Amino acid sequence: MKGFGVHTSLWAMEWTREGAERAVAEASRCGFDFVEIALLDPPAVDAAHTRALLEANDLPAVCSLGLPEECWASVRPDNAIDFLKMAIDKSADLGALALSGVTYGGIGERTGNPPTEAELDNVARVLEAAAAYAGSKGLAFGIEPVNRYESHILNTGWQAADLIDKVGSDNIFIHLDTYHMNIEEKGAANGILAAREHLRYIHMSESDRGVPGAGTCDWNEIYAALAAIGFNGGLAMESFINLPPQIGSALSVWRPVADSAEQVIEEGLPFLRNMARQYGLI
Amino acid sequence: MKGFGVHTSLWAMEWTREGAERAVAEASRCGFDFVEIALLDPPAVDAAHTRALLEANDLPAVCSLGLPEECWASVRPDNAIDFLKMAIDKSADLGALALSGVTYGGIGERTGNPPTEAELDNVARVLEAAAAYAGSKGLAFGIEPVNRYESHILNTGWQAADLIDKVGSDNIFIHLDTYHMNIEEKGAANGILAAREHLRYIHMSESDRGVPGAGTCDWNEIYAALAAIGFNGGLAMESFINLPPQIGSALSVWRPVADSAEQVIEEGLPFLRNMARQYGLI
Amino acid sequence: MKGFGVHTSLWAMEWTREGAERAVAEASRCGFDFVEIALLDPPAVDAAHTRALLEANDLPAVCSLGLPEECWASVRPDNAIDFLKMAIDKSADLGALALSGVTYGGIGERTGNPPTEAELDNVARVLEAAAAYAGSKGLAFGIEPVNRYESHILNTGWQAADLIDKVGSDNIFIHLDTYHMNIEEKGAANGILAAREHLRYIHMSESDRGVPGAGTCDWNEIYAALAAIGFNGGLAMESFINLPPQIGSALSVWRPVADSAEQVIEEGLPFLRNMARQYGLI
Amino acid sequence: MKGFGVHTSLWAMEWTREGAERAVAEASRCGFDFVEIALLDPPAVDAAHTRALLEANDLPAVCSLGLPEECWASVRPDNAIDFLKMAIDKSADLGALALSGVTYGGIGERTGNPPTEAELDNVARVLEAAAAYAGSKGLAFGIEPVNRYESHILNTGWQAADLIDKVGSDNIFIHLDTYHMNIEEKGAANGILAAREHLRYIHMSESDRGVPGAGTCDWNEIYAALAAIGFNGGLAMESFINLPPQIGSALSVWRPVADSAEQVIEEGLPFLRNMARQYGLI
Repeated sequence: MKGFGVHTSLWAMEWTREGAERAVAEASRCGFDFVEIALLDPPAVDAAHTRALLEANDLPAVCSLGLPEECWASVRPDNAIDFLKMAIDKSADLGALALSGVTYGGIGERTGNPPTEAELDNVARVLEAAAAYAGSKGLAFGIEPVNRYESHILNTGWQAADLIDKVGSDNIFIHLDTYHMNIEEKGAANGILAAREHLRYIHMSESDRGVPGAGTCDWNEIYAALAAIGFNGGLAMESFINLPPQIGSALSVWRPVADSAEQVIEEGLPFLRNMARQYGLI
Repeated sequence: MKGFGVHTSLWAMEWTREGAERAVAEASRCGFDFVEIALLDPPAVDAAHTRALLEANDLPAVCSLGLPEECWASVRPDNAIDFLKMAIDKSADLGALALSGVTYGGIGERTGNPPTEAELDNVARVLEAAAAYAGSKGLAFGIEPVNRYESHILNTGWQAADLIDKVGSDNIFIHLDTYHMNIEEKGAANGILAAREHLRYIHMSESDRGVPGAGTCDWNEIYAALAAIGFNGGLAMESFINLPPQIGSALSVWRPVADSAEQVIEEGLPFLRNMARQYGLI
Repeated sequence: MKGFGVHTSLWAMEWTREGAERAVAEASRCGFDFVEIALLDPPAVDAAHTRALLEANDLPAVCSLGLPEECWASVRPDNAIDFLKMAIDKSADLGALALSGVTYGGIGERTGNPPTEAELDNVARVLEAAAAYAGSKGLAFGIEPVNRYESHILNTGWQAADLIDKVGSDNIFIHLDTYHMNIEEKGAANGILAAREHLRYIHMSESDRGVPGAGTCDWNEIYAALAAIGFNGGLAMESFINLPPQIGSALSVWRPVADSAEQVIEEGLPFLRNMARQYGLI
Repeated sequence: MKGFGVHTSLWAMEWTREGAERAVAEASRCGFDFVEIALLDPPAVDAAHTRALLEANDLPAVCSLGLPEECWASVRPDNAIDFLKMAIDKSADLGALALSGVTYGGIGERTGNPPTEAELDNVARVLEAAAAYAGSKGLAFGIEPVNRYESHILNTGWQAADLIDKVGSDNIFIHLDTYHMNIEEKGAANGILAAREHLRYIHMSESDRGVPGAGTCDWNEIYAALAAIGFNGGLAMESFINLPPQIGSALSVWRPVADSAEQVIEEGLPFLRNMARQYGLI
């Protein structure tokens, strides 16, 4: 995971053969260094087809997911481990470098209370097993803190660092997301400071999930902090223009936050890429 | 609604006599120009007691609320009208200048889809009736856009302005909140620009609802936009340190976002008040 | 003066025929709405040639200047009036809409003391005469506050507004510059707030005079304040890549602050223009 | 040089006995961790008196200066070395930890051209000698880049790092100043990134040299970058309210940029100190 990549939801609502072909072609045309593929339904993905596509375009990939409710790590740790192993196998089959995302629970998981020790113990057990299994397959394994409305388990960089300490694994990295950090962190750079050496992947997503540069994120502060900690992982632009129905509701985007994918590519991409160059990150 | 006020949740989890006395005393001691009182359960409020307290301390008040699920305006407009009339009566009884907040629905109301025309028609009918009734009682009536996770009905300043146009009432004002704007608006000032002449009240709340000045809100931009549009309504500092159980879950604050109410008063308040003076707003 | 224009120093170090042809062609190619022409040596400009060029390309123009030392308004008001009348004649001859800039003194004029009443009286007398003469020729007349190192006479928006009040003319507008505001104003928007109805022209220049978007200017705040006051004058991108020797020393740029004019056009221009569209200013 | 200190110009225009007593008493009362003393005229300072004052108040000190014109390092290196040795002796005598500031030239030194190799060679020779002499006296020796108007020799963090490389000394540190960085660096954090391991001292000064927090500096970005590089040197608040005549003109402050020293202490100090705590820097 290096350089400047993109979350493929910009072009493909679901990772069908057709969606994969469109997304990989577009990502390649735009000069991205890698793609992120959302495994909404891992068994449905044609791994051989994706692997061939990625190799033909010389595009590394990162897979990401959230757990379905019957597999939430906090309450059904054994189911979660089984689901994650299956998703790690699929990620390995399609040639991904890592599996990351809300790997510790559901997008939208909230009990109405702060996380309990018992919930966190379950989560830690799941992450330990999944990270070890990912390592045995040659994959890195990530955890992405999300905002308070999308999970009560993990909201900030320091919570993620604490969780890694609790698990004690050396194959877990922190995956931040500027959209969530804008809501949760005390200053846009704070999550980056807290994650520091664990940080290997970051979603570059605007405050409304629309066109990067046209929102409230403080991109100078974000890039400066990344440069200052010596970040050398993957920067993944993420905008939600075309939402798969399964996640549209959980993400709660009720209006178009960009005119089109073209606007993201023509306005947001140069904005983010120019600044990444300015700060020596690519 | 003028000057620099405070949401009393900083001191009183529920508006009991004891909570009211503590909150009014603290607000008065800190030199606030007005208080906001959350009417979580309007019938339970002792209006005569509150009115006497406010008068004794020469403190104007604004009441706020969200609708209970059986009274959501989008689906149960008649119930919503009845509830709002009751809340307006209570607000008038305790001497408030206005009733505002999520007066158009529930905090946490989401169908999983964008608002439909039918839902918005119901909302408009409710707002028209409530604004007229409020006017007959000498109260202003406000609507507060909140973020996508707390409502699918109304998220931005321009949606609020559109809704006022749809209703056609002249007794509805827009009540913005910097916490929600940080998530929803394209640039912190955009909600202010869209609301403009309708804007009469604003929650000054940090990006994590903690100590103002210690988060990601761009306060210079916010104050500059307020000064530039000639804003002369009420600025209400809002931090959620002590949460009533009913709204704790809906607000989804799973960790302490400030050390204490004292920290908000000692660090956040001078930060916000100095800058309000710098921009000529108080 | 409307829309999004450019200071032609980006392409032409001196306004010779050759420089004028190159600059107008480039400005036209890039879709600018108007050009700013620096009248470093007004008599040397071939007005008929420039007028024909501008008309052929349908490009309005604004002229700008600083006064030579023997014509500083604060100490030699009669010389200043003569010089300004000559420059106004030249501006009218080449078809400009306005003459603006450091029309009240020298770039680099500093006595080592705050401006005295006698100096300001002289300046006011000059501005009154020049504004009247410009008006008689159909031109608007502007004054541009610059930073403390470039003049001790006029550094901020509120000083400019005060000066216009002192002069009492209705043909003087304020011309701000974000580069200078970044040094002088308390918050990037403050100069805009102070200038408000007098503001008809603004240099969009980065904090180091290099590539817009790659410095410390808070562009969201600037655009938000412009939108909020209802600004409808000219936005002129200004970067100093190619400096005429006469002004290179006064501007004190001792190192390249951009790679090339191309970088300004390819990175800075879309950054500024996209944001101007986002805020509804063009 | 650790913790949060203050430039004593806030209280003492010249470092006379009376000024020293007032400044040290005020700095001590406000809880600063160290003081910076400007050696405008080193021989005139009563070192024994200052040393006794500092010891009695348990206040470490840093001395700073700019070179007089007859001692500019770029053109009169031998004079510069003599002057610096004398100033280092005085600094050692009064018990200072370091001598820093514009130790490489004059405040206001500009030839009208970029620095030449010959000038930089002279500067390097001076710095090498001065740093060695300072080391022999147990003092650290710093260089402070200033803005383009105050020097043509050294404007940015990366130029300072290059100069240290050129000198090859291990007793030179970089001393940044947020006021100058706001004009010169591409993003407020860039000077910090460039100076990185050489950075041991920083002036926390607002964009107009007035009240910290009431200007255009992006303090979150500054603090975040300092935290991210692991800065553990001295943070020195600097505001120019009372200017010694010798430097008033060079600093070019032609109007009051704060109401009073009290405003700086009551508004600016808590702003800066709270944020330093938030980022774990003190």
